[in-house]
This record gives sequence, C-alpha cells and structure tokens, in this order.
Amino acid sequence: MVAPAICLGVTLKVFANSSEDSAAQIVDHVLGDFCSAEEVLKFAQDCDVLTFEHELIPESVIRVLEDKGITVRPSANSFKFSQDKAFMRQELSRHKIDGPDWQLLYGDEDLLLTFPLIAKSISGGYDGKGVWIIEEKGGLAELLGKEGKLLLEEKINFDYEIAVMVSRSPHGQAATWSPTLTIQKDGICIQTITPPPQLSERLRIEATAIALKIAEIIGLVGVMAVEMFVVADRILVNEVALRPHNSGHWTIEGSTTNQFEQHIRAVLDLPLGDTSMRAPYAVMGNVIGGQKTDMYRPYLHLFARNPEIKIHQYRKTVRPGRKVGHVTCVGNNLSSLQEDIEHAVAYMNGEIDE
Amino acid sequence: MVAPAICLGVTLKVFANSSEDSAAQIVDHVLGDFCSAEEVLKFAQDCDVLTFEHELIPESVIRVLEDKGITVRPSANSFKFSQDKAFMRQELSRHKIDGPDWQLLYGDEDLLLTFPLIAKSISGGYDGKGVWIIEEKGGLAELLGKEGKLLLEEKINFDYEIAVMVSRSPHGQAATWSPTLTIQKDGICIQTITPPPQLSERLRIEATAIALKIAEIIGLVGVMAVEMFVVADRILVNEVALRPHNSGHWTIEGSTTNQFEQHIRAVLDLPLGDTSMRAPYAVMGNVIGGQKTDMYRPYLHLFARNPEIKIHQYRKTVRPGRKVGHVTCVGNNLSSLQEDIEHAVAYMNGEIDE
Repeated sequence: MVAPAICLGVTLKVFANSSEDSAAQIVDHVLGDFCSAEEVLKFAQDCDVLTFEHELIPESVIRVLEDKGITVRPSANSFKFSQDKAFMRQELSRHKIDGPDWQLLYGDEDLLLTFPLIAKSISGGYDGKGVWIIEEKGGLAELLGKEGKLLLEEKINFDYEIAVMVSRSPHGQAATWSPTLTIQKDGICIQTITPPPQLSERLRIEATAIALKIAEIIGLVGVMAVEMFVVADRILVNEVALRPHNSGHWTIEGSTTNQFEQHIRAVLDLPLGDTSMRAPYAVMGNVIGGQKTDMYRPYLHLFARNPEIKIHQYRKTVRPGRKVGHVTCVGNNLSSLQEDIEHAVAYMNGEIDE
Repeated sequence: MVAPAICLGVTLKVFANSSEDSAAQIVDHVLGDFCSAEEVLKFAQDCDVLTFEHELIPESVIRVLEDKGITVRPSANSFKFSQDKAFMRQELSRHKIDGPDWQLLYGDEDLLLTFPLIAKSISGGYDGKGVWIIEEKGGLAELLGKEGKLLLEEKINFDYEIAVMVSRSPHGQAATWSPTLTIQKDGICIQTITPPPQLSERLRIEATAIALKIAEIIGLVGVMAVEMFVVADRILVNEVALRPHNSGHWTIEGSTTNQFEQHIRAVLDLPLGDTSMRAPYAVMGNVIGGQKTDMYRPYLHLFARNPEIKIHQYRKTVRPGRKVGHVTCVGNNLSSLQEDIEHAVAYMNGEIDE
C-alpha cells in the first residue's frame, strides 16, 4: 500500500510488530504490539483512518478503538468474518450462500459429516496452517483435544479453485476484478491465472455476484478476497480474507487500478477506480523459499531472459516454504506467460539454475 | 523512484536538501547540502551506487566523489552535458547532431545570429527559467551584463516539440520509449501526448535514432530526456536532461516499464525492461499551481467522474505556476483522453469548479 499512498499524497503511518516486518523496512513506522489495545490506541490518535494488512489483530482490540471513536476500516463487525470462521460459515449459511456442509465441534456432539473431512481452527489460519484433512475418528479426537474447538467442513472434490477480489467503500460503492484461478500445492497458492481459462461466462457472472453479495452482507470497507471451489456448474464459498490478498497481486500490472490503491481509496471513502484488465491474461507466481537465499542476483538472468517480467520482493528472510516474493507477466499468450512464470519462480528458489 | 525500489527490494537512501523535499516526505533520508562534497561523500559511504534526481549538484562535487571511488551514475563526464549547455551544444555539433545554430557570448564577440534569438544561462535553467527570447541588441547587452556568459541559439519556428526518453546501462544496453508530444505554455510543459499524432513513421525512427546516438555519445547511465523541435521534416535537438523527466511521466501507466524503474535498473546494471506501450495512447497533464491549494479534495469529483484517471501528487506547497502534480489517462480514444486530462488539471488548480 505504500506505493499508491505515495502517489496519492496520502500519509501512511505503519504500526509494526518488528522492524523486520516488510512494511517497517521501507517506511517510517512505530514499533508495538498489535495485541495491546493501549499501544494501538496511542498510535491511532494521529490517524484519520486505521486499516490492517493481516487478520491476527484481536477483535477486542478493534472494539476498544471503535469505542474510543477511532475510524477503523473494515470495522470490527466486518472483520469478525475473517477472524472467526465459525461465525463466517453461520452468516453465509443464513444468507443462503452456497458452501460445503459444515458443523462446529466442541466435544462429543454427533458427527454430521462423513470422513474424510476438513477440520479448521476457528481463527488464525493461513497458507495451509490451521487446516487439516481428517481421515478417521481417532485423528479427529486427537486434534480436538489440542484445539478445543473445530470447524468441520465437508471435503469438496472440486474441479478447480478461484478467487474473486472485491472492493467496497463506506457508502456502498463496490467493484470486483475478474475472477482468478488459484493453483495450490501443499495448501499454499503457487500460481494465479486471470481470467480462469476454464470458467464459463455464466459461472464468472455468478462468482462475481456472490463476491458482491458477501461484501454487502459483511459491510466490507476496503478490499476482500472470496475464495471459491468450482464443482461442475456449482460454486461453493471456501474462505474470505478482508485485506489485499495474494490472489489479487496480479492486479498491480494487470488492472487499471490495483488492489492496494483500491484499498486505500475505499478506506478513505474516495470513489473506486476502474478494475478492468490491461491485457487479456495475467499470470502471477509466488516465489516460495527454497535452497537459494540470494533473491537479488536472479534478477540478472530473469530480466535478461524476459524484459516484460515484473519481480516483487518482500524483503523477508528466505525460509523453505515461505512466500518471499512474487512475479507477474501480462499479455496475450497464456501458455507462454505460464512458462515464463514457472521458469522464474523455479529459478528464484533454486530448483533450476538456468 | 521510491515505488519501484520498494518493489525490487532495493534499499533507497535519500540525501535531501530539506525535509520539505518531495522524496524526504516519504522515505527515510539524511539532510544535507548537495553543494558540499564533504557532506555528500559522508552520505555516499554506505551506498553501492549514487544517482541524482536533479541537475543542480555541482560537477565538482561529483568529481570529488568519483575520485574517492564512489560509483556515480550518470558519471561526471556524462552529467556535464545537462549541466553545461555550451559543452552540450559543442559536443552535439562535433558529432553532427542537428540543432539550432548557436554561439557563445562572453563579451563583444561578433554576433553570428539574427534577432529575435534565444539566450540561455549555461547551467541551472528549467521550466522556462534561464531562457529568454531576445528581440534586439540592447536587451542582449543588458542580459549579458547580468549573466556574464550566454549561450545564444537561433530561434526556431518549430511546428511542434517532442521528447524521447532513453535509458542506457553501464555495458551499453539501451532502450527508448515512444517519442512524446510536449505541449508548452509560458515555457512550461503542460501536457504530453504519446505517441505524437502528427509524427510520421520516418521521423519517429529518426528521433529514436538521435536519442540513442546521444545516449552513446554522452555515455549515459540511467534515463535521459532528449527534447527536440520538429520543423517540417527536420528534427533539431533542443535540450537534454539526464534524469527521469516530466516528458516520461506517462510511462508510469502507459508502458510496461516506467522511467523510474528503468533508471534504477540502469544504475544498478540490471538488464533493462520492456518499454512498449500498454495502450494506443497516453495523455499526461501537469497540475500547475493556481488559486486552489487543497490538492486532495478534488479527488472526490475527479475519481467519480472518471474511474480510469490516475492522479500523482508531489506534496509540494501550491504556488502559482509551480508543478505540484500530474494526471494521466491511457486508452484508445485520444480526443476523450485529452478532454479528461484538460478537465482534471483545470479542476485541480481551480480554473473550473465542476
């Protein structure tokens, strides 16, 4: 969000947990503990509006800020949808949004679902963390013992997964970007393709309508990712994330207005920007940490090989399995874009050396 | 340059004259006097490479840095072309690059040009400052008395003005963007149109070749603007500026690689990025300070009126005649893009109120 804030002349202040945080490495920041209402409140005194780039901040902290008259966007009531997966499931079911069958499990309730099933922590999961595939009763009992409370979901044998990024401003203006295909490996998104080549026009319209409806239900202010399963001609909502999201990174090069600029415009109650694509296809690949730790030297080869590729660096210490950056190509020829992206991420993390 | 540096994970340190400088307002910086070799040298100790965003730093300071082994890009030898207009004219003439007839005037040399003519300060001019139209002998003598030394140039009755942005890296890779039409008012550029609608294919190729040749002559490292007059089927070189330049601002939205990213890639000796356009036309309008001083509130109307417009704010105090920002639109329909840009700049500076 720093780049569009600079461009718009908006002063962005960062409250960071550690000076090693990506944002803290690039802009002026205040160090503090986001679990302390007192520290966040002190920081917020100077701000016209407060927003978040992750979902780990406790709802109770946001409620304290709101009680003290701080404008927080999205609000605590909205934020609860991505912080409390049980609440999210319950509300989406109440509004007849299609999803996997689900139940909550606290103790020895009757199991309404059949194995294998998906078990999720109620809050705090990301990148495959906090999500388990459970094959039988013993495994479930063991996990419940550790977690205390679980959201259980039907395991969907989906054809593919998509995400729709949606933005909404306080007075209710909303806009979506094209749905994007999200390709996962070991529970981590490795690539997105926009638009999803296999998505029919009917399903594209339906996915967009679902994202807009959820934004309305949630009272979203800012941008949100709605992750969905596609099973034949059905769309089932998997997760929501109330922030600029990995599945919207393609918008930096691929759309007239990217998700970060849009988030800033939404939380400032400015009119939203055009979300149309700037090329027929955008392919984004996540750089997942591997053996190689120098994330700069690969530029020499990758930029020489393809002058159109764009590399984004998060300045995170490289650890195996950690998302440390992403690469994007936009253009007309999908198979060549995919080839370039797959080459680049493999070269960045050391899987190939030419 | 801050935004692409963040994206590439490159640490950008800013040496600023004042904490009110645009760059100093957005990133960590060291305050100092760029005319003091000692202060700049102290700053430069931590840097792999040093570059500049204006041309006011004395050549002598750059020479001291180079003598101490600091990598400065562009080099003092290159930089001299934009700092010393007499040297620039002499070198371009020596290499048979077409330009207006010119001479230097120190005292009572014979005047080789006819009135009206253009007189220029040898260094330090920009936005119409340091450039005068001289109608007769008395005016020239008076100006020479003040300036001590003048570059005199034939006054060209040009059909229109264009600029070509060119980038070049230390090992000689070079790339240009499309030429752009630069529309001036009172010596200040108010609008650019890319590509220039009236420029023939032959002249486009010639203008590009001239920019590349000058980059080679200069030994450019970084990006440079070459400003040119078009007179019927002739191209005459007017000025060069060795830095990201107003006539390249359209590249932020209009090209795959913008001039700021390219400058960083060039000075780091990374392979250059693709410079092709992302839409058939890009129109950029400078926001020139007027009566209105609030540069934020206009966003409400302008973004609602046109979701595709992009507004760039320099966070400068608004003063009449000062460039305080710019707006860009890209697309297919040139006349509608121009209309939107002309409306936006007039609304930003208070000439119109709806």
